[in-house]
Amino acid sequence: MATTPRVILFDVNETLSDMSALGSRFSDIGLAPELSTLWFATLLRDGFALTASTDNVPFADIGAGALRVLLAGKSINRPLDAAIAHVMEGLIGLPLHDDVPQGIVALADAEYRLVTLSNGSASIAGKLFTEAGIRVHFELLLSVEDAPAWKPAPESYSYAATRIGVEPAEILLVAVHPWDIHGAARAGLNTAWLNRGNGTYPPHFAPPDITVTSLRDLPAALSVPR
Amino acid sequence: MATTPRVILFDVNETLSDMSALGSRFSDIGLAPELSTLWFATLLRDGFALTASTDNVPFADIGAGALRVLLAGKSINRPLDAAIAHVMEGLIGLPLHDDVPQGIVALADAEYRLVTLSNGSASIAGKLFTEAGIRVHFELLLSVEDAPAWKPAPESYSYAATRIGVEPAEILLVAVHPWDIHGAARAGLNTAWLNRGNGTYPPHFAPPDITVTSLRDLPAALSVPR
Repeated sequence: MATTPRVILFDVNETLSDMSALGSRFSDIGLAPELSTLWFATLLRDGFALTASTDNVPFADIGAGALRVLLAGKSINRPLDAAIAHVMEGLIGLPLHDDVPQGIVALADAEYRLVTLSNGSASIAGKLFTEAGIRVHFELLLSVEDAPAWKPAPESYSYAATRIGVEPAEILLVAVHPWDIHGAARAGLNTAWLNRGNGTYPPHFAPPDITVTSLRDLPAALSVPR
Repeated sequence: MATTPRVILFDVNETLSDMSALGSRFSDIGLAPELSTLWFATLLRDGFALTASTDNVPFADIGAGALRVLLAGKSINRPLDAAIAHVMEGLIGLPLHDDVPQGIVALADAEYRLVTLSNGSASIAGKLFTEAGIRVHFELLLSVEDAPAWKPAPESYSYAATRIGVEPAEILLVAVHPWDIHGAARAGLNTAWLNRGNGTYPPHFAPPDITVTSLRDLPAALSVPR
Protein backbone atom coordinates (compact mmCIF):
# COMPACT_ATOMS: atom_id res chain seq x y z
CA MET A 1 0.00 0.00 0.00
CA ALA A 2 1.30 3.44 -0.93
CA THR A 3 -0.32 5.17 2.05
CA THR A 4 -2.23 4.04 5.12
CA PRO A 5 -5.93 4.10 4.23
CA ARG A 6 -8.31 6.06 6.45
CA VAL A 7 -11.49 4.30 5.30
CA ILE A 8 -12.10 0.58 5.87
CA LEU A 9 -14.71 -0.94 3.58
CA PHE A 10 -16.07 -4.28 4.76
CA ASP A 11 -17.73 -7.03 2.83
CA VAL A 12 -20.63 -8.38 4.94
CA ASN A 13 -21.77 -11.95 4.12
CA GLU A 14 -19.28 -14.42 5.63
CA THR A 15 -16.70 -11.64 6.20
CA LEU A 16 -18.62 -10.25 9.20
CA SER A 17 -21.58 -12.64 9.48
CA ASP A 18 -21.04 -16.32 10.26
CA MET A 19 -22.77 -18.31 7.54
CA SER A 20 -21.98 -21.72 9.07
CA ALA A 21 -25.34 -21.40 10.85
CA LEU A 22 -26.99 -21.89 7.43
CA GLY A 23 -25.96 -25.57 7.46
CA SER A 24 -28.50 -26.25 10.20
CA ARG A 25 -31.22 -24.68 8.07
CA PHE A 26 -30.56 -27.38 5.45
CA SER A 27 -30.64 -30.04 8.19
CA ASP A 28 -33.98 -28.62 9.34
CA ILE A 29 -35.56 -29.25 5.93
CA GLY A 30 -34.18 -32.80 5.75
CA LEU A 31 -30.97 -32.36 3.73
CA ALA A 32 -27.22 -32.57 4.37
CA PRO A 33 -25.83 -29.38 5.98
CA GLU A 34 -22.94 -29.37 3.46
CA LEU A 35 -25.45 -28.38 0.76
CA SER A 36 -25.27 -24.83 2.12
CA THR A 37 -21.76 -24.51 0.63
CA LEU A 38 -22.94 -25.61 -2.83
CA TRP A 39 -25.94 -23.31 -2.57
CA PHE A 40 -23.84 -20.25 -1.72
CA ALA A 41 -21.33 -21.00 -4.52
CA THR A 42 -24.27 -21.36 -6.92
CA LEU A 43 -25.85 -18.14 -5.72
CA LEU A 44 -22.61 -16.23 -6.36
CA ARG A 45 -21.99 -18.05 -9.68
CA ASP A 46 -25.40 -16.94 -10.95
CA GLY A 47 -25.05 -13.44 -9.51
CA PHE A 48 -21.68 -12.97 -11.19
CA ALA A 49 -23.05 -14.41 -14.46
CA LEU A 50 -25.80 -11.77 -14.34
CA THR A 51 -23.16 -9.13 -13.59
CA ALA A 52 -21.09 -10.32 -16.58
CA SER A 53 -24.20 -10.02 -18.76
CA THR A 54 -24.67 -6.45 -17.43
CA ASP A 55 -27.68 -7.19 -15.19
CA ASN A 56 -28.10 -6.29 -11.52
CA VAL A 57 -30.56 -8.62 -9.74
CA PRO A 58 -31.26 -8.51 -5.97
CA PHE A 59 -29.17 -10.99 -3.95
CA ALA A 60 -32.20 -12.46 -2.17
CA ASP A 61 -33.99 -13.14 -5.49
CA ILE A 62 -31.02 -15.15 -6.75
CA GLY A 63 -30.68 -16.91 -3.41
CA ALA A 64 -34.31 -18.04 -3.51
CA GLY A 65 -34.12 -18.92 -7.22
CA ALA A 66 -30.95 -20.98 -6.76
CA LEU A 67 -32.64 -22.82 -3.88
CA ARG A 68 -35.66 -23.59 -6.07
CA VAL A 69 -33.33 -25.24 -8.61
CA LEU A 70 -31.18 -27.02 -6.00
CA LEU A 71 -34.11 -28.44 -4.01
CA ALA A 72 -36.10 -29.63 -7.06
CA GLY A 73 -36.45 -33.40 -6.95
CA LYS A 74 -34.77 -33.68 -3.54
CA SER A 75 -36.52 -35.32 -0.61
CA ILE A 76 -37.44 -32.48 1.73
CA ASN A 77 -39.73 -32.60 4.75
CA ARG A 78 -42.03 -29.69 3.86
CA PRO A 79 -43.51 -27.99 0.78
CA LEU A 80 -40.90 -26.42 -1.56
CA ASP A 81 -41.93 -22.80 -0.91
CA ALA A 82 -41.80 -23.35 2.85
CA ALA A 83 -38.35 -24.95 2.56
CA ILE A 84 -37.04 -22.01 0.51
CA ALA A 85 -38.49 -19.54 3.02
CA HIS A 86 -36.89 -21.42 5.93
CA VAL A 87 -33.40 -21.23 4.42
CA MET A 88 -33.80 -17.61 3.30
CA GLU A 89 -34.89 -16.59 6.84
CA GLY A 90 -31.57 -18.01 8.00
CA LEU A 91 -29.72 -15.41 5.91
CA ILE A 92 -31.43 -12.59 7.81
CA GLY A 93 -30.67 -13.86 11.30
CA LEU A 94 -26.98 -14.81 11.07
CA PRO A 95 -24.65 -14.14 14.01
CA LEU A 96 -21.38 -12.17 13.73
CA HIS A 97 -18.08 -14.06 13.76
CA ASP A 98 -16.49 -14.05 17.25
CA ASP A 99 -13.62 -11.73 16.25
CA VAL A 100 -15.85 -9.05 14.76
CA PRO A 101 -17.14 -6.96 17.71
CA GLN A 102 -13.68 -6.53 19.28
CA GLY A 103 -12.02 -5.89 15.89
CA ILE A 104 -14.59 -3.26 14.91
CA VAL A 105 -14.32 -1.44 18.25
CA ALA A 106 -10.51 -1.41 18.00
CA LEU A 107 -10.61 0.02 14.46
CA ALA A 108 -13.15 2.65 15.49
CA ASP A 109 -10.96 3.58 18.49
CA ALA A 110 -8.05 4.03 16.07
CA GLU A 111 -10.25 6.54 14.19
CA TYR A 112 -10.68 4.66 10.95
CA ARG A 113 -13.88 5.49 9.09
CA LEU A 114 -15.86 2.21 8.84
CA VAL A 115 -18.23 1.44 5.93
CA THR A 116 -19.77 -1.73 4.49
CA LEU A 117 -20.39 -2.64 0.84
CA SER A 118 -22.51 -5.77 0.40
CA ASN A 119 -23.84 -7.66 -2.60
CA GLY A 120 -26.83 -8.24 -0.30
CA SER A 121 -29.18 -5.59 1.04
CA ALA A 122 -27.96 -2.89 3.43
CA SER A 123 -30.83 -3.63 5.80
CA ILE A 124 -29.42 -7.07 6.67
CA ALA A 125 -26.12 -5.49 7.72
CA GLY A 126 -28.02 -2.88 9.73
CA LYS A 127 -30.01 -5.51 11.62
CA LEU A 128 -26.89 -7.56 12.31
CA PHE A 129 -24.89 -4.63 13.71
CA THR A 130 -27.74 -3.16 15.73
CA GLU A 131 -28.35 -6.49 17.48
CA ALA A 132 -24.64 -6.80 18.25
CA GLY A 133 -24.43 -3.21 19.54
CA ILE A 134 -21.82 -2.08 16.98
CA ARG A 135 -24.03 -0.16 14.51
CA VAL A 136 -22.78 3.15 15.94
CA HIS A 137 -19.25 2.49 14.66
CA PHE A 138 -20.28 2.38 10.98
CA GLU A 139 -20.55 5.63 9.06
CA LEU A 140 -22.38 4.14 6.06
CA LEU A 141 -23.92 0.79 5.10
CA LEU A 142 -23.85 0.48 1.30
CA SER A 143 -25.35 -2.11 -1.05
CA VAL A 144 -24.72 -2.84 -4.71
CA GLU A 145 -28.51 -2.59 -5.08
CA ASP A 146 -27.84 1.15 -5.39
CA ALA A 147 -24.72 0.73 -7.57
CA PRO A 148 -24.51 0.06 -11.32
CA ALA A 149 -23.34 -3.54 -10.71
CA TRP A 150 -22.44 -6.21 -8.13
CA LYS A 151 -18.97 -6.68 -6.77
CA PRO A 152 -16.45 -7.54 -8.23
CA ALA A 153 -17.35 -5.21 -11.16
CA PRO A 154 -15.20 -2.04 -11.02
CA GLU A 155 -18.34 0.16 -10.92
CA SER A 156 -19.35 -1.26 -7.53
CA TYR A 157 -16.14 -0.09 -5.85
CA SER A 158 -16.14 3.30 -7.57
CA TYR A 159 -19.75 3.74 -6.44
CA ALA A 160 -18.59 3.18 -2.84
CA ALA A 161 -15.66 5.60 -3.20
CA THR A 162 -17.99 8.26 -4.56
CA ARG A 163 -20.53 7.75 -1.77
CA ILE A 164 -17.78 7.93 0.87
CA GLY A 165 -16.22 10.92 -0.85
CA VAL A 166 -12.64 9.66 -1.09
CA GLU A 167 -10.32 8.30 -3.77
CA PRO A 168 -10.19 4.47 -4.22
CA ALA A 169 -6.54 4.50 -3.04
CA GLU A 170 -7.69 5.90 0.33
CA ILE A 171 -9.83 2.79 1.00
CA LEU A 172 -8.93 -0.63 2.40
CA LEU A 173 -11.35 -3.40 1.35
CA VAL A 174 -11.61 -6.21 3.92
CA ALA A 175 -13.10 -9.53 2.78
CA VAL A 176 -12.88 -13.28 3.22
CA HIS A 177 -13.64 -13.75 -0.49
CA PRO A 178 -10.68 -13.68 -2.88
CA TRP A 179 -12.93 -12.56 -5.76
CA ASP A 180 -13.73 -9.43 -3.75
CA ILE A 181 -10.03 -8.77 -3.03
CA HIS A 182 -9.35 -9.16 -6.76
CA GLY A 183 -12.07 -6.77 -7.90
CA ALA A 184 -11.13 -4.15 -5.31
CA ALA A 185 -7.45 -4.36 -6.28
CA ARG A 186 -8.39 -3.93 -9.97
CA ALA A 187 -10.45 -0.87 -9.01
CA GLY A 188 -7.49 0.74 -7.20
CA LEU A 189 -8.38 0.00 -3.57
CA ASN A 190 -6.01 -1.45 -0.97
CA THR A 191 -6.99 -4.92 0.20
CA ALA A 192 -6.88 -7.12 3.30
CA TRP A 193 -7.77 -10.81 3.11
CA LEU A 194 -9.40 -12.12 6.26
CA ASN A 195 -8.31 -15.77 6.18
CA ARG A 196 -10.00 -17.22 9.29
CA GLY A 197 -9.81 -20.82 8.07
CA ASN A 198 -6.13 -20.80 7.13
CA GLY A 199 -7.12 -21.47 3.53
CA THR A 200 -5.16 -21.29 0.28
CA TYR A 201 -5.43 -18.08 -1.77
CA PRO A 202 -6.49 -18.89 -5.37
CA PRO A 203 -3.61 -18.19 -7.76
CA HIS A 204 -5.98 -16.83 -10.43
CA PHE A 205 -6.90 -13.75 -8.37
CA ALA A 206 -4.82 -10.66 -7.58
CA PRO A 207 -3.17 -11.17 -4.17
CA PRO A 208 -4.13 -9.08 -1.13
CA ASP A 209 -1.88 -6.34 0.28
CA ILE A 210 -2.37 -7.70 3.81
CA THR A 211 -3.52 -11.06 5.18
CA VAL A 212 -4.83 -11.54 8.74
CA THR A 213 -6.51 -14.56 10.34
CA SER A 214 -8.65 -12.50 12.73
CA LEU A 215 -10.19 -9.04 12.53
CA ARG A 216 -8.62 -8.41 15.94
CA ASP A 217 -5.21 -8.44 14.20
CA LEU A 218 -6.06 -5.82 11.60
CA PRO A 219 -5.28 -2.64 13.63
CA ALA A 220 -1.74 -3.90 14.35
CA ALA A 221 -1.23 -5.04 10.74
CA LEU A 222 -2.21 -1.56 9.53
CA SER A 223 0.17 0.22 11.91
CA VAL A 224 3.22 -1.55 10.41
CA PRO A 225 5.09 0.88 8.11
CA ARG A 226 5.21 -0.29 4.48
CA MET B 1 -37.99 -16.76 -32.43
CA ALA B 2 -38.69 -14.31 -35.24
CA THR B 3 -37.08 -16.51 -37.91
CA THR B 4 -35.65 -20.02 -38.02
CA PRO B 5 -31.91 -19.76 -37.33
CA ARG B 6 -29.47 -21.32 -39.80
CA VAL B 7 -26.52 -21.47 -37.43
CA ILE B 8 -26.54 -23.57 -34.25
CA LEU B 9 -23.97 -22.52 -31.67
CA PHE B 10 -23.25 -25.15 -29.03
CA ASP B 11 -21.84 -24.79 -25.57
CA VAL B 12 -19.38 -27.66 -24.96
CA ASN B 13 -18.72 -28.54 -21.28
CA GLU B 14 -21.68 -30.55 -19.93
CA THR B 15 -23.87 -29.55 -22.93
CA LEU B 16 -22.05 -31.98 -25.25
CA SER B 17 -19.52 -33.64 -22.93
CA ASP B 18 -20.71 -35.76 -20.01
CA MET B 19 -19.04 -34.37 -16.89
CA SER B 20 -20.47 -37.03 -14.56
CA ALA B 21 -17.28 -39.00 -15.26
CA LEU B 22 -15.41 -36.36 -13.22
CA GLY B 23 -16.97 -37.72 -10.03
CA SER B 24 -14.84 -40.85 -10.31
CA ARG B 25 -11.71 -38.69 -10.56
CA PHE B 26 -12.54 -37.34 -7.09
CA SER B 27 -13.12 -40.89 -5.84
CA ASP B 28 -9.71 -41.86 -7.29
CA ILE B 29 -7.94 -39.26 -5.14
CA GLY B 30 -9.81 -40.34 -2.00
CA LEU B 31 -12.71 -37.85 -1.85
CA ALA B 32 -16.49 -37.96 -2.28
CA PRO B 33 -17.53 -37.90 -5.96
CA GLU B 34 -20.14 -35.20 -5.19
CA LEU B 35 -17.27 -32.74 -4.70
CA SER B 36 -17.04 -32.50 -8.49
CA THR B 37 -20.30 -30.52 -8.48
CA LEU B 38 -18.98 -28.02 -5.93
CA TRP B 39 -15.70 -27.76 -7.82
CA PHE B 40 -17.40 -26.96 -11.14
CA ALA B 41 -19.71 -24.38 -9.52
CA THR B 42 -16.64 -22.80 -7.89
CA LEU B 43 -14.71 -22.79 -11.17
CA LEU B 44 -17.55 -20.97 -12.92
CA ARG B 45 -18.10 -18.64 -9.94
CA ASP B 46 -14.48 -17.55 -10.08
CA GLY B 47 -14.44 -17.37 -13.88
CA PHE B 48 -17.52 -15.15 -13.91
CA ALA B 49 -16.08 -13.00 -11.10
CA LEU B 50 -13.00 -12.44 -13.26
CA THR B 51 -15.27 -11.65 -16.21
CA ALA B 52 -17.19 -9.14 -14.06
CA SER B 53 -13.89 -7.50 -13.10
CA THR B 54 -13.02 -7.32 -16.85
CA ASP B 55 -10.38 -10.08 -16.85
CA ASN B 56 -10.17 -13.10 -19.18
CA VAL B 57 -8.28 -16.02 -17.59
CA PRO B 58 -7.94 -19.48 -19.20
CA PHE B 59 -10.54 -22.00 -18.02
CA ALA B 60 -7.95 -24.65 -17.16
CA ASP B 61 -5.98 -22.20 -14.98
CA ILE B 62 -9.09 -21.43 -12.93
CA GLY B 63 -9.99 -25.12 -12.78
CA ALA B 64 -6.58 -26.03 -11.37
CA GLY B 65 -6.56 -23.00 -9.04
CA ALA B 66 -10.02 -23.79 -7.68
CA LEU B 67 -8.91 -27.39 -7.06
CA ARG B 68 -5.84 -26.16 -5.16
CA VAL B 69 -8.14 -24.21 -2.82
CA LEU B 70 -10.78 -26.97 -2.53
CA LEU B 71 -8.29 -29.77 -1.80
CA ALA B 72 -6.21 -27.80 0.74
CA GLY B 73 -6.45 -29.48 4.13
CA LYS B 74 -8.48 -32.42 2.78
CA SER B 75 -7.30 -36.00 3.20
CA ILE B 76 -6.17 -37.09 -0.27
CA ASN B 77 -4.21 -40.20 -1.23
CA ARG B 78 -1.41 -38.55 -3.24
CA PRO B 79 0.57 -35.28 -3.32
CA LEU B 80 -1.53 -32.16 -4.00
CA ASP B 81 -0.04 -31.42 -7.44
CA ALA B 82 -0.61 -35.02 -8.54
CA ALA B 83 -4.23 -34.91 -7.32
CA ILE B 84 -4.87 -31.66 -9.22
CA ALA B 85 -3.32 -33.14 -12.37
CA HIS B 86 -5.44 -36.29 -12.05
CA VAL B 87 -8.72 -34.33 -11.92
CA MET B 88 -7.67 -31.91 -14.68
CA GLU B 89 -6.78 -34.84 -16.99
CA GLY B 90 -10.36 -35.98 -16.52
CA LEU B 91 -11.59 -32.75 -18.15
CA ILE B 92 -9.69 -33.55 -21.34
CA GLY B 93 -10.95 -37.12 -21.75
CA LEU B 94 -14.69 -36.76 -21.15
CA PRO B 95 -17.17 -38.78 -23.21
CA LEU B 96 -20.06 -37.25 -25.18
CA HIS B 97 -23.59 -37.56 -23.81
CA ASP B 98 -25.49 -40.45 -25.45
CA ASP B 99 -27.87 -38.19 -27.38
CA VAL B 100 -25.13 -36.07 -28.97
CA PRO B 101 -23.82 -38.08 -31.98
CA GLN B 102 -27.31 -38.79 -33.35
CA GLY B 103 -28.53 -35.25 -32.65
CA ILE B 104 -25.51 -33.67 -34.35
CA VAL B 105 -25.83 -35.89 -37.45
CA ALA B 106 -29.56 -35.09 -37.74
CA LEU B 107 -28.90 -31.34 -37.50
CA ALA B 108 -26.09 -31.57 -40.08
CA ASP B 109 -28.39 -33.57 -42.40
CA ALA B 110 -30.96 -30.78 -42.05
CA GLU B 111 -28.25 -28.39 -43.31
CA TYR B 112 -27.80 -26.29 -40.21
CA ARG B 113 -24.34 -24.76 -39.85
CA LEU B 114 -22.87 -26.14 -36.60
CA VAL B 115 -20.39 -24.19 -34.46
CA THR B 116 -19.20 -24.42 -30.84
CA LEU B 117 -18.39 -21.60 -28.41
CA SER B 118 -16.72 -22.78 -25.21
CA ASN B 119 -15.42 -21.07 -22.11
CA GLY B 120 -12.78 -23.80 -22.28
CA SER B 121 -10.20 -24.29 -25.00
CA ALA B 122 -11.21 -25.16 -28.57
CA SER B 123 -8.72 -28.03 -28.63
CA ILE B 124 -10.72 -29.99 -26.03
CA ALA B 125 -13.83 -29.81 -28.21
CA GLY B 126 -11.75 -30.85 -31.24
CA LYS B 127 -10.36 -33.92 -29.47
CA LEU B 128 -13.82 -34.92 -28.21
CA PHE B 129 -15.48 -34.66 -31.64
CA THR B 130 -12.63 -36.31 -33.54
CA GLU B 131 -12.70 -39.32 -31.23
CA ALA B 132 -16.48 -39.62 -31.64
CA GLY B 133 -16.26 -39.26 -35.43
CA ILE B 134 -18.42 -36.11 -35.61
CA ARG B 135 -15.71 -33.43 -36.09
CA VAL B 136 -16.58 -33.18 -39.80
CA HIS B 137 -20.02 -31.78 -39.00
CA PHE B 138 -18.69 -28.67 -37.23
CA GLU B 139 -17.75 -25.66 -39.32
CA LEU B 140 -15.90 -23.84 -36.53
CA LEU B 141 -14.80 -24.55 -32.96
CA LEU B 142 -14.54 -21.26 -31.08
CA SER B 143 -13.23 -20.42 -27.62
CA VAL B 144 -13.61 -17.31 -25.49
CA GLU B 145 -9.82 -17.45 -25.18
CA ASP B 146 -9.88 -15.54 -28.48
CA ALA B 147 -12.82 -13.30 -27.49
CA PRO B 148 -12.77 -10.17 -25.33
CA ALA B 149 -14.52 -12.01 -22.46
CA TRP B 150 -16.05 -15.27 -21.22
CA LYS B 151 -19.67 -16.15 -21.71
CA PRO B 152 -22.16 -14.82 -20.56
CA ALA B 153 -20.62 -11.37 -21.32
CA PRO B 154 -22.27 -9.88 -24.45
CA GLU B 155 -18.86 -9.54 -26.16
CA SER B 156 -18.41 -13.33 -26.23
CA TYR B 157 -21.54 -13.89 -28.30
CA SER B 158 -20.89 -10.96 -30.63
CA TYR B 159 -17.37 -12.34 -31.15
CA ALA B 160 -18.93 -15.63 -32.28
CA ALA B 161 -21.41 -13.90 -34.61
CA THR B 162 -18.58 -11.92 -36.19
CA ARG B 163 -16.43 -15.02 -36.67
CA ILE B 164 -19.36 -16.93 -38.21
CA GLY B 165 -20.29 -13.91 -40.34
CA VAL B 166 -23.98 -13.69 -39.42
CA GLU B 167 -26.23 -11.48 -37.30
CA PRO B 168 -26.88 -12.60 -33.68
CA ALA B 169 -30.57 -13.12 -34.56
CA GLU B 170 -29.56 -15.77 -37.12
CA ILE B 171 -27.97 -17.94 -34.40
CA LEU B 172 -29.50 -20.47 -31.99
CA LEU B 173 -27.44 -21.02 -28.82
CA VAL B 174 -27.86 -24.52 -27.36
CA ALA B 175 -26.78 -25.07 -23.74
CA VAL B 176 -27.60 -26.95 -20.57
CA HIS B 177 -26.55 -23.91 -18.50
CA PRO B 178 -29.24 -21.30 -17.83
CA TRP B 179 -26.57 -18.58 -17.41
CA ASP B 180 -25.52 -19.23 -21.03
CA ILE B 181 -29.13 -19.07 -22.26
CA HIS B 182 -29.50 -15.76 -20.39
CA GLY B 183 -26.36 -14.16 -21.80
CA ALA B 184 -27.14 -15.29 -25.35
CA ALA B 185 -30.71 -13.96 -25.11
CA ARG B 186 -29.37 -10.61 -23.84
CA ALA B 187 -26.99 -10.52 -26.82
CA GLY B 188 -29.82 -11.04 -29.31
CA LEU B 189 -29.40 -14.76 -30.10
CA ASN B 190 -32.19 -17.34 -30.12
CA THR B 191 -31.87 -19.95 -27.39
CA ALA B 192 -32.60 -23.63 -26.74
CA TRP B 193 -32.25 -25.09 -23.25
CA LEU B 194 -31.13 -28.69 -23.23
CA ASN B 195 -32.75 -29.96 -20.02
CA ARG B 196 -31.61 -33.58 -19.86
CA GLY B 197 -32.21 -33.92 -16.13
CA ASN B 198 -35.75 -32.53 -16.11
CA GLY B 199 -34.53 -29.70 -13.88
CA THR B 200 -36.12 -26.41 -12.85
CA TYR B 201 -35.17 -23.30 -14.84
CA PRO B 202 -33.91 -20.55 -12.49
CA PRO B 203 -36.42 -17.69 -12.37
CA HIS B 204 -33.63 -15.07 -12.25
CA PHE B 205 -32.45 -15.81 -15.82
CA ALA B 206 -34.13 -14.93 -19.14
CA PRO B 207 -36.14 -17.99 -20.27
CA PRO B 208 -35.16 -20.02 -23.36
CA ASP B 209 -37.10 -19.85 -26.64
CA ILE B 210 -37.15 -23.66 -26.87
CA THR B 211 -36.66 -26.43 -24.30
CA VAL B 212 -35.78 -30.02 -25.25
CA THR B 213 -34.74 -32.93 -23.04
CA SER B 214 -32.54 -34.57 -25.70
CA LEU B 215 -30.48 -33.22 -28.58
CA ARG B 216 -32.26 -35.80 -30.74
CA ASP B 217 -35.47 -33.76 -30.30
CA LEU B 218 -33.97 -30.46 -31.48
CA PRO B 219 -34.47 -30.87 -35.27
CA ALA B 220 -38.19 -31.51 -34.80
CA ALA B 221 -38.53 -28.67 -32.27
CA LEU B 222 -36.93 -26.27 -34.81
CA SER B 223 -39.26 -27.33 -37.63
CA VAL B 224 -42.37 -26.27 -35.70
CA PRO B 225 -43.60 -22.91 -37.07
CA ARG B 226 -43.54 -20.12 -34.46
